[in-house]
Amino acid sequence: MTFIAQVLTLYPEMFPGPLGLSIAGRALNEGRWRCDPLQIRDFATDRHRSVDDTPAGGGAGMVLRADVVARAVDHAAAAAPGLPMLAMTPRGAPLSQKRVRALAAGPGLTILCGRFEGFDERLFEARGIEQVSIGDYILSGGEMGALVLLDACVRLLPGVMGAPSSGDDESFESGLLEYPHYTRPNEWEGRTIPEVLRSGDHAKIAAWRKSKAEIDTRLRRPDLWERHEGARVRSPSGARHDED
Amino acid sequence: MTFIAQVLTLYPEMFPGPLGLSIAGRALNEGRWRCDPLQIRDFATDRHRSVDDTPAGGGAGMVLRADVVARAVDHAAAAAPGLPMLAMTPRGAPLSQKRVRALAAGPGLTILCGRFEGFDERLFEARGIEQVSIGDYILSGGEMGALVLLDACVRLLPGVMGAPSSGDDESFESGLLEYPHYTRPNEWEGRTIPEVLRSGDHAKIAAWRKSKAEIDTRLRRPDLWERHEGARVRSPSGARHDED
Repeated sequence: MTFIAQVLTLYPEMFPGPLGLSIAGRALNEGRWRCDPLQIRDFATDRHRSVDDTPAGGGAGMVLRADVVARAVDHAAAAAPGLPMLAMTPRGAPLSQKRVRALAAGPGLTILCGRFEGFDERLFEARGIEQVSIGDYILSGGEMGALVLLDACVRLLPGVMGAPSSGDDESFESGLLEYPHYTRPNEWEGRTIPEVLRSGDHAKIAAWRKSKAEIDTRLRRPDLWERHEGARVRSPSGARHDED
Repeated sequence: MTFIAQVLTLYPEMFPGPLGLSIAGRALNEGRWRCDPLQIRDFATDRHRSVDDTPAGGGAGMVLRADVVARAVDHAAAAAPGLPMLAMTPRGAPLSQKRVRALAAGPGLTILCGRFEGFDERLFEARGIEQVSIGDYILSGGEMGALVLLDACVRLLPGVMGAPSSGDDESFESGLLEYPHYTRPNEWEGRTIPEVLRSGDHAKIAAWRKSKAEIDTRLRRPDLWERHEGARVRSPSGARHDED
């Protein structure tokens, strides 16, 4: 089954872009996913093909019109029915690996990319669009966010990653950062690979990695650590909280 | 002065990619920034041009070698001395708008893009590399993160955004989400633009927007709201906390 990625944007030429190369590009060529960019401007009705207007109440920049974008959204929904519809916006819910996994397990998604000051708010209510943010910083448009979201989804599609086990130990999959990695040469500029990793003792290696993941999460991401510990305490068995 | 973006990657053909279009593309053509991708593989020393090896201690995937990547890093540092060096990795500190502003105010940056399981950890200590994450999800490589980071920086370079006031009200600049936007038509599918925004009363509009920004932040991002309120309480004047 082909995963469908519809992207509504003023810059369709940005897609697939970097997703046409490497892992995502190979998957695209193999037909594991499809990238259908749609030009929002094609749904304008005046002869200037306007998609935006000045903000109600004043202020800098331009706002994407609800009526024009809704026509694009309705066209996309009719072209590929049943896909979740997401808009990339800094006002959205932070993207999580859990949400990525759920989306990747589905038939595909439609992504709305904002530009300028963003969309007329009425659009989201009227069409039940999920607002998503990739992080607490400002981009020139939603296109980079769409590329990030698609890259995160595509690598999880069946047959895309080499080893089927790849990914289980990754950062965030367990609610912790991943442990640090090392490879040859054993000594480099006077720095050696931690002894335990060369011991061949699998139980000791697993314990060291778990401990490093916990220490690094606590030090680098107290916010993640707190959530992880909170989930552990809430679980009656004391078992590790699994995000999925 | 031209902002220099050096990118160390196994996929130099991904750059400038989408950054060659729209606002960032125009700025690139105007010489406001420069994009210099460097192929990490060019710094391998064996005839197979190997850049990676199996993880010490076992496990799936491959790890980027410290010695090979360090040669690429040292070459980049010599080619453009004095640039901050960042690696895109999920183990890094979350990217913030504050960090973006600081980077955009500087001479440029060098970005290291990981692939596979990531870099040999010794590299970061040996070269004082800042580890940055764009969000709590897993990508197929650091390239998407580099595109995001560069887009966020480039839009802040002098002369890149249209109106000089653009950006001050944006989400995160004040520690809050931005207020919602509306534009014509005034009535659409039975939904009207909030009355206050059509009142022409600038003080009332400003108060409404501030209140909406606070309400939406509290509802959608309790984590941001807590930080914002914490900063307000810590400030003796009770003044709004300014991230910059």
